[in-house]
Amino acid sequence: MRRTPPRRPTIKDIARRAGVSESAVSFALNGRPGVSDATRERVRRVAEQLGWQPSTAARALSGEGAATVGLVLARPARTLGVESFFLQLVSGIQEALAARRFGLLFQVVEDLGAECAVYRRWWAERRVDGLLVVDPRAEDPRPGLLDELGLPAVVVGAPDGPPGPPYAAISTLWADDTAAMTSIIDHLHTLGHRRITHIAGLPELAHTRRRMACLRAEAARRELPDVRSVTTDYSDAQGAEATRRALTGPRPPTAIVYDNDVMAVAGLAVAAERGLSVPADVSVVAWDDSALCRNTHPALTSLTRDTPAFGRRAAEHLLSLLNGAPPHRIQDATPTLLPRASTAPPPRGEDPAGSGAPHGET
Amino acid sequence: MRRTPPRRPTIKDIARRAGVSESAVSFALNGRPGVSDATRERVRRVAEQLGWQPSTAARALSGEGAATVGLVLARPARTLGVESFFLQLVSGIQEALAARRFGLLFQVVEDLGAECAVYRRWWAERRVDGLLVVDPRAEDPRPGLLDELGLPAVVVGAPDGPPGPPYAAISTLWADDTAAMTSIIDHLHTLGHRRITHIAGLPELAHTRRRMACLRAEAARRELPDVRSVTTDYSDAQGAEATRRALTGPRPPTAIVYDNDVMAVAGLAVAAERGLSVPADVSVVAWDDSALCRNTHPALTSLTRDTPAFGRRAAEHLLSLLNGAPPHRIQDATPTLLPRASTAPPPRGEDPAGSGAPHGET
Repeated sequence: MRRTPPRRPTIKDIARRAGVSESAVSFALNGRPGVSDATRERVRRVAEQLGWQPSTAARALSGEGAATVGLVLARPARTLGVESFFLQLVSGIQEALAARRFGLLFQVVEDLGAECAVYRRWWAERRVDGLLVVDPRAEDPRPGLLDELGLPAVVVGAPDGPPGPPYAAISTLWADDTAAMTSIIDHLHTLGHRRITHIAGLPELAHTRRRMACLRAEAARRELPDVRSVTTDYSDAQGAEATRRALTGPRPPTAIVYDNDVMAVAGLAVAAERGLSVPADVSVVAWDDSALCRNTHPALTSLTRDTPAFGRRAAEHLLSLLNGAPPHRIQDATPTLLPRASTAPPPRGEDPAGSGAPHGET
Repeated sequence: MRRTPPRRPTIKDIARRAGVSESAVSFALNGRPGVSDATRERVRRVAEQLGWQPSTAARALSGEGAATVGLVLARPARTLGVESFFLQLVSGIQEALAARRFGLLFQVVEDLGAECAVYRRWWAERRVDGLLVVDPRAEDPRPGLLDELGLPAVVVGAPDGPPGPPYAAISTLWADDTAAMTSIIDHLHTLGHRRITHIAGLPELAHTRRRMACLRAEAARRELPDVRSVTTDYSDAQGAEATRRALTGPRPPTAIVYDNDVMAVAGLAVAAERGLSVPADVSVVAWDDSALCRNTHPALTSLTRDTPAFGRRAAEHLLSLLNGAPPHRIQDATPTLLPRASTAPPPRGEDPAGSGAPHGET
């Protein structure tokens, strides 16, 4: 039952239709001298009429590249889902790639080992010209691997510590998580909060470590002993569980900072289930603004940024690398805190020194 | 500064290392006769040591296919984001593709015209072997186009009406929206609701039309005059606006059914902002279950299904088509209603015939 697909137009078809030789077509379409302007114009018009496109496969074999960039997301399947950050990032990436007719080869894998295996395979199969690398780790094998394979890449988010060996074609595009976390602590501290819990994401991610380090430094500087971070897998289940543990502990927080929107929403539900009012009993801040943060009740105080624009810039930097531009470390705009209804001063009678009377056990 | 990338291993490298001729390597790796079993074994071991992979580009030019399937999501950028359905679908698709070493070429575009242009380009550039087509439309140009191009495809979700011309290599995988909508109306009607508003998604989608038609038919059968659908773009903003209009209208609903999770959450916030209690004043049902639905307060009564498994099956059917299997119309499991805390009997005093006293204007 399978029909033969229609034949894709070839150089030969164009030559026949335009009434010129095949080499004239080749010269004309490749912008090389050797044909008149009139012939070049006619050939291009015929090629367009026939729907001719240079085959990606032919381009790849001739060394011109696959016109494709790769993106691998290594997250356990159970944590995929409502995080809005990722689809917004991809929509921005697509915008930049579409303008240059590049495709995005996309794969979801379970872990970093599988991600590295995908990179080796894509390289061996000439599938991609370069990569967008997300979720940088504290000890990250990926930049070294991609450098070894000669695959240009943009690492989205800064690696921890020094930039590492001077890789030939690996840029980083990063936002200042430390400044962003400081703005959250400023906001809560100014409102009067002294006991703050930070419900963080995956402990192996570089930005998780930076946020936690910033929180510790700010707590020390402001002399706040009851400020701490706990890590999770970003899922609503672990966000809810961490919230429950924090609120039933010996010195419960009067404010909770969540590393993503999904966990913040799960935290709101835990507070409601325990009869705690937000923000009267406990204040809540979410790291990534989204439709979720705007639509809870109360709406969530959140860190906002233009995520599609962030993705667009990452893809543009990668395209520059593919054009032979040198690599850069590029700092993107710092996310800004948008106060909404979920943050307020702590309940009256809360001892600023944190004497530890549990609250909210209604 | 750009270094020359390391050379990918070639047939020549394998021949040298294995101490055999290049044609012997070619015979061995392509499973053709003409070499001894011992040589075949040695060649395969050396190829594996060297990390050799057949180049996708070479495969595509030789007519063996690109080992890639395509997926285009045509949604206005502003509506991308928190919908969990899509990332879950993709994670299931990846699972099936990874097992066969197929890649997923993924693109986000603004509208259906741009989607068709992408298909034509991918075809001309030999980028994909087949396609997964999502969001079927009432009048859908895509199956006809893909049939014309000879690109096998699986349409995820049933097209409206008859299956159309007998396409050579286009399958559909669909779930019974009508039965699912009927189960929602059953649940609400049994609780005592007579005035129900359905806040639907994009009007041009086939499944939106089917759900609306089912709602009309059920309302007629049960003699409920105050049951209606309104369409939106699936965004939280339009979901909230439609909720506001419904609740302030002359015969406000006692139950609202939302076509996705994001709009349902936005609707909860509108109810809270108007001082209405869910479910005491108004019941809420969400079409797609997600972390969101579980974590609102109250948790949302939702239609549930195994979306990753749905994606996995769609990809497996596409791989079968690529192997030459005939196309099929395949019915997937019907989503089942999971009652949670957001649905209850309507407020007492609500006239079952819908006499129209507005409620909840607190």
